[in-house]
Amino acid sequence: MKTVTLTMPLDMHVHLRDGDMLKIVAPLTSYTFSGALVMPNLVPPITTKEMVKEYRSRIKAAMESDDFEPYMTLFYQNFSREFLESVQDDITAIKIYPSGATTNSQGGVVSFDIEPMRETLEAMSDFGIVLCVHGETQGFVMDREAEFMSVYEKLAINFPKLKIIMEHITTREAVEMLDRHPNLYATITVHHLMITLDDVAGGMLRPHLFCKPIAKRPHDRDALLKIALQAHPKVMFGSDSAPHPKHAKESCGCGAGVFTAPIALQLLCEIFQEHNALDNLQAFVSDNAQRIYGICAEYKEVVLVERDFVVPEIYADVVPMRAGETLTWSIERVD
Amino acid sequence: MKTVTLTMPLDMHVHLRDGDMLKIVAPLTSYTFSGALVMPNLVPPITTKEMVKEYRSRIKAAMESDDFEPYMTLFYQNFSREFLESVQDDITAIKIYPSGATTNSQGGVVSFDIEPMRETLEAMSDFGIVLCVHGETQGFVMDREAEFMSVYEKLAINFPKLKIIMEHITTREAVEMLDRHPNLYATITVHHLMITLDDVAGGMLRPHLFCKPIAKRPHDRDALLKIALQAHPKVMFGSDSAPHPKHAKESCGCGAGVFTAPIALQLLCEIFQEHNALDNLQAFVSDNAQRIYGICAEYKEVVLVERDFVVPEIYADVVPMRAGETLTWSIERVD
Repeated sequence: MKTVTLTMPLDMHVHLRDGDMLKIVAPLTSYTFSGALVMPNLVPPITTKEMVKEYRSRIKAAMESDDFEPYMTLFYQNFSREFLESVQDDITAIKIYPSGATTNSQGGVVSFDIEPMRETLEAMSDFGIVLCVHGETQGFVMDREAEFMSVYEKLAINFPKLKIIMEHITTREAVEMLDRHPNLYATITVHHLMITLDDVAGGMLRPHLFCKPIAKRPHDRDALLKIALQAHPKVMFGSDSAPHPKHAKESCGCGAGVFTAPIALQLLCEIFQEHNALDNLQAFVSDNAQRIYGICAEYKEVVLVERDFVVPEIYADVVPMRAGETLTWSIERVD
Repeated sequence: MKTVTLTMPLDMHVHLRDGDMLKIVAPLTSYTFSGALVMPNLVPPITTKEMVKEYRSRIKAAMESDDFEPYMTLFYQNFSREFLESVQDDITAIKIYPSGATTNSQGGVVSFDIEPMRETLEAMSDFGIVLCVHGETQGFVMDREAEFMSVYEKLAINFPKLKIIMEHITTREAVEMLDRHPNLYATITVHHLMITLDDVAGGMLRPHLFCKPIAKRPHDRDALLKIALQAHPKVMFGSDSAPHPKHAKESCGCGAGVFTAPIALQLLCEIFQEHNALDNLQAFVSDNAQRIYGICAEYKEVVLVERDFVVPEIYADVVPMRAGETLTWSIERVD
């Protein structure tokens, strides 16, 4: 049977939540990944050094693996240079959300005017703190990401030393931005390599595939696939795995998020194998991220084997993507 | 308080279902409408004269009003001229579904090649049987209706005496077709005058607004509004009210359909009043349909008044659109 060995896989965009949910999902990420960039959109959001340190402690306590590093983020505010200097060793990135764009983002920014943000973004440039961006406008749902491209351009040009990550990109327009500005990078989820809006709402409505940004058109997915499969040096894997309790997904007014943490590597093997690109998977899930972020990840080796794996219907209270379906790759062992 | 009197309102596209659901929803339609064109996509679909007559009897038994006429339809198959001649007095229209396009449409047509359909469509032309069309291709969900325009053109040109109804149109492209072919008409729902994909999936996911065809872009809604508000002579109201049990809508993989039967006229008053077009509502909800279909509807007068109406959270087992919300118009009385 065919096997694939991945060293130090990294998930550069994950939601671990807090409390009981953290205890459910943290071990599922820490089992197969060497590290993950942990998003700060809790209630209340992570905005102080103390909150970062305490959240990190709770994550470490919830993990079931010592060889895993939670890379911490702050929820963007107009922070002072002094504060950023004091917190730089505790964080890897700062995540900026447009207000209301997604789950628990109400405290996000209402405008991307440069001047009020200049002190913060210049200090981040100087201290080497990465800026992660949820890039969507308040426009029509299928256009929000494409409309946001002018904001990325403005940020990239005004802060040329700042590393800017276009998070969970879903459109051809975002793919085309990558080669235009040296300081723009991107994460791509595994579900956006697989689904389009057709999968969410083209047949029955499938709440477990509803996420933000919403899955787009076939030509958008094809553009994402192309750069992921070639492990374009400016893209990294970031699952955006975003658990919600089952009842909250299957109800009137369900929240956005696809839960993929425990199946992400298996799905990636399927996709990369299908396109004869398995040789590029290591770069997509680890090497690119280490280079872009300057991370030296905890050593971990994950061996996957081409053997059927039936995805559990539920992990505690969380329904994963592809629940009950059979994947063609399994985790063989983690060393 | 302002009042509006509608005479002989007609709902030219409604799903009354069967069994227990029929008993719940038929009285809600027969209360305020003089008649309704009843869709045939039951399981199994209505395809014989006997099924039409028996379904009509069950509808009459479930109604709570004598002054209501269920206009019956057959589920399209390649029927013989002889059959159509024998059934013409029992039906008003035949509804054609592309296979798999919506609820219970598996037995629909897999191709719109003209020749196999010629005998049926020519006989329908001769007998004055209207063709109602669910116009969607198997393409990407946001493009399905626009892609179907070439089929409408082909049908309209090949069967110039056949009255063809583009059902529940949702796009600017369909609006633009109306003036191109004299034998093309359209129904418009009340929900497609109000919502876009943003309402379904732009914030939280809202299964009770999920329908087929799916709600499109703001410019599409604006195009629909324009011709509805002017009561364009080739458009009619058809609610496409499509009840599903609550548990089936609020679950993993919910069916398509918005339930509006008991609130349709109130919502239409709101919309037409907001745009200073109340004078055109009578034509949109009755006169146009009577002229297009050659129907002489049962006499009924519905008086609406500008007074708050709180929409029930649920009608038996069916959640209506705007459940729990307050509308600004109420049904005052029905004479």
